[in-house]
Amino acid sequence: MSSKLIAIVAGVGAGTGAAVARKFASTYPVVLLARNPDNFKSLAEEINSSGGKAIGISTDVSDSKSVQNAVDAIKKEFGSDVAAAAAIFNASGGFVRKPFLELPEDGFTQSLIVSAKGGFLFSQATLPLLLEGVKQKSQHPPSLIFTGATASVKSSAQMSSFSTGKWALRALSQSLAKEFGPQGVHVSHAIIDGVIDIPRTKEWLKEAGPEAKLSADGIANDYWYLHTQPRTNFTWELDLRPAVEKW
Amino acid sequence: MSSKLIAIVAGVGAGTGAAVARKFASTYPVVLLARNPDNFKSLAEEINSSGGKAIGISTDVSDSKSVQNAVDAIKKEFGSDVAAAAAIFNASGGFVRKPFLELPEDGFTQSLIVSAKGGFLFSQATLPLLLEGVKQKSQHPPSLIFTGATASVKSSAQMSSFSTGKWALRALSQSLAKEFGPQGVHVSHAIIDGVIDIPRTKEWLKEAGPEAKLSADGIANDYWYLHTQPRTNFTWELDLRPAVEKW
Amino acid sequence: MSSKLIAIVAGVGAGTGAAVARKFASTYPVVLLARNPDNFKSLAEEINSSGGKAIGISTDVSDSKSVQNAVDAIKKEFGSDVAAAAAIFNASGGFVRKPFLELPEDGFTQSLIVSAKGGFLFSQATLPLLLEGVKQKSQHPPSLIFTGATASVKSSAQMSSFSTGKWALRALSQSLAKEFGPQGVHVSHAIIDGVIDIPRTKEWLKEAGPEAKLSADGIANDYWYLHTQPRTNFTWELDLRPAVEKW
Amino acid sequence: MSSKLIAIVAGVGAGTGAAVARKFASTYPVVLLARNPDNFKSLAEEINSSGGKAIGISTDVSDSKSVQNAVDAIKKEFGSDVAAAAAIFNASGGFVRKPFLELPEDGFTQSLIVSAKGGFLFSQATLPLLLEGVKQKSQHPPSLIFTGATASVKSSAQMSSFSTGKWALRALSQSLAKEFGPQGVHVSHAIIDGVIDIPRTKEWLKEAGPEAKLSADGIANDYWYLHTQPRTNFTWELDLRPAVEKW
Repeated sequence: MSSKLIAIVAGVGAGTGAAVARKFASTYPVVLLARNPDNFKSLAEEINSSGGKAIGISTDVSDSKSVQNAVDAIKKEFGSDVAAAAAIFNASGGFVRKPFLELPEDGFTQSLIVSAKGGFLFSQATLPLLLEGVKQKSQHPPSLIFTGATASVKSSAQMSSFSTGKWALRALSQSLAKEFGPQGVHVSHAIIDGVIDIPRTKEWLKEAGPEAKLSADGIANDYWYLHTQPRTNFTWELDLRPAVEKW
Repeated sequence: MSSKLIAIVAGVGAGTGAAVARKFASTYPVVLLARNPDNFKSLAEEINSSGGKAIGISTDVSDSKSVQNAVDAIKKEFGSDVAAAAAIFNASGGFVRKPFLELPEDGFTQSLIVSAKGGFLFSQATLPLLLEGVKQKSQHPPSLIFTGATASVKSSAQMSSFSTGKWALRALSQSLAKEFGPQGVHVSHAIIDGVIDIPRTKEWLKEAGPEAKLSADGIANDYWYLHTQPRTNFTWELDLRPAVEKW
Repeated sequence: MSSKLIAIVAGVGAGTGAAVARKFASTYPVVLLARNPDNFKSLAEEINSSGGKAIGISTDVSDSKSVQNAVDAIKKEFGSDVAAAAAIFNASGGFVRKPFLELPEDGFTQSLIVSAKGGFLFSQATLPLLLEGVKQKSQHPPSLIFTGATASVKSSAQMSSFSTGKWALRALSQSLAKEFGPQGVHVSHAIIDGVIDIPRTKEWLKEAGPEAKLSADGIANDYWYLHTQPRTNFTWELDLRPAVEKW
Repeated sequence: MSSKLIAIVAGVGAGTGAAVARKFASTYPVVLLARNPDNFKSLAEEINSSGGKAIGISTDVSDSKSVQNAVDAIKKEFGSDVAAAAAIFNASGGFVRKPFLELPEDGFTQSLIVSAKGGFLFSQATLPLLLEGVKQKSQHPPSLIFTGATASVKSSAQMSSFSTGKWALRALSQSLAKEFGPQGVHVSHAIIDGVIDIPRTKEWLKEAGPEAKLSADGIANDYWYLHTQPRTNFTWELDLRPAVEKW
């Protein structure tokens, strides 16, 4: 395996993004993208101080210049022939429940800007690195993984902002899976159907017990599993929910 | 029925939009929205000269000011207590087939801007008029109808621009159907799964015979049917395709 | 239009089946199929005494001999060159909510037998008559319509019997739509997503008001609409629910 | 972990079933069910001679007595308090492409009998053993896994037999996932979307290269992965296809 293979995670916060970064960091140097450096600083330190390698780059995935800067920084760090083993898009925005007629325009477009436009920019920036990974015959097929939600397949009343962005992201992932699968890149979409167990949701579902929420580390394992599927057995989509979830 | 009930059609061109406008014009004064006045001028004349009433308003549905101007012009013409019997969103953009890595950012976002943001602005502008129609006890439940496509449920390789916009629009329509159905507005989404028979597609599928393409007038009838469904029997979604279509 | 064109309705009871029969009887002689003659007797009399023509045939749609007997009786009544304008499959069975491990085998298979096997036998018996309708150039494309339910697209806990039959029926209808659409027969599937307003459900949802249930006459209108769609604009599937329904 | 935990595989042939059995045999004693002993004999020998434990039981999964006999034989072999760590339903039937009007009744019902009725009987027989596995606190949540196909979500012309059975099986699996997830049993459905690389398909897709077919061992790994997901992160459904597959 080339020593140049890296993993890139967009949308690193307290939950899925951080867990995914930790998981992939045990095999690859990881690049952590988040708008706010507070979201990756301590995580990068943690990874670097425990035998891994991580760099954080302050990036707005919905801004093409910012994404280009991130790619430049990645090449500066890892060389211009850097290849990616995995790129994980975990950013999201616009989660708001509000009567439709009270929703301001920028409230509605927020999710589209992060999920759809951000997903597009992130994919265009990372796919060349993933294709380079194919060329360098990475051990596992290079993976582009998108984090979806219940709202990716169900559009609830008063939630049109979040769901339009998530449906658009799912469409993007399906189109990319069809175009880049034959080129050797494994594109996947995970429907996270439930609440994730992170500090922010500590008080939620408390009475339902310790297994009522999705484990972020579990999601990271699931993403790693997708990453290790061979070219003969690609999964585009899977759903994930706690055993006790009503659905 | 109040004399104030109107129908509003966004995205009036040679095909579905014009046919829908003609159909609804036999019952309601119609407002024709299109960016380019060339797209509604002769149609408005045709309707006005054959016993109907139509006004065209040059409108960019993806621009909030332009949409607000359209609403102002509608109120100036039909009174500030104007109510809508139907609002039909037929605009679309970003239909392009291109290797993903060659797609410029504005090529990708074009469909999202017209379908998702445009659909949002059109819905926010017309729903108050449709709710006014409910209040005025319109004969048929006021209808908000969105035009979808094969790409609303299937995201093909190299077509992510079109499909992300269409999936987002479908998500919007489902959320609105759930929120506004109980308030008396009938929100629908039609999946147009085939080529429509319009001048631009004259040469397409020629060898397949006269019935290989969808009839725009037929679609207009289908939309009218949706409009006349009573509150006990609302359809959110239907698909439409020629009998001979392979699917 | 040939005087030989008939409509055949399987599953005639108090609700949808009877309403559909009445609706189609205003244009075609109708054949009413039900296991129990009590289910069609008074309906046949009602239609015959009000200017229409109806015959009832006691039929078990899940029994091939019984279905063949029905076809023989139809040919005896209307001639061996009889053609069908419409065939509507409205039979269902196995609606039961029960912990899975307490469900007896015949409780589970009941829905499969009526919906899947019954749908198969009904389709094989009526499609030759519908194709004959195509040959005789019926005014409207001959229609084969299947009644679905919420359980056709959603399989709830403790409801596997009903949903397996309904999913199988939906699969059958999609396959037939693809095979027989190009031959001129219009195959449709209606997802009835709510409670139908019939004597048996009189007390249900009472507090929710008169519009909380689907109208059987409304469904009949919807089926008639499907029947009148031209070959350029076939709908395979639509959903139907009361405006106030939560979904 | 209790020494009594076993894995049960129904539908053991040359492909997925055998590969799954081998995979699970490295951790659990396995029970191999097939109608024809030829299908499990050499496999059982292979497993038994390489350090594992396997017994084969000639079973018709669509016959309740035969399934009961299998359960009796399992209890005789492993004790009446035997618990299952995994039960995998890989049987299928009725794969036939034929004009609908030429399909004999037993050709149509074949798939329903194996997939739907067989799936029901297998689930009723194994769920008590899986629940016993929950009680015995198996290391991994006991798993009930169903093998689906492209035809589980798409019903092609002239393929109604296979698809009705597969749609019914998918409905069964979804209902069971919702009922038994909260009880600790992990129910999954895998959509195998492509040709599996087995002796029978040796000549198929040959020109498309060695990666154009799904690997049966890969599917076994995927099922094992599903089996090892913790209660916080259950996947109900995933799709599997070769990277080069057109879809």
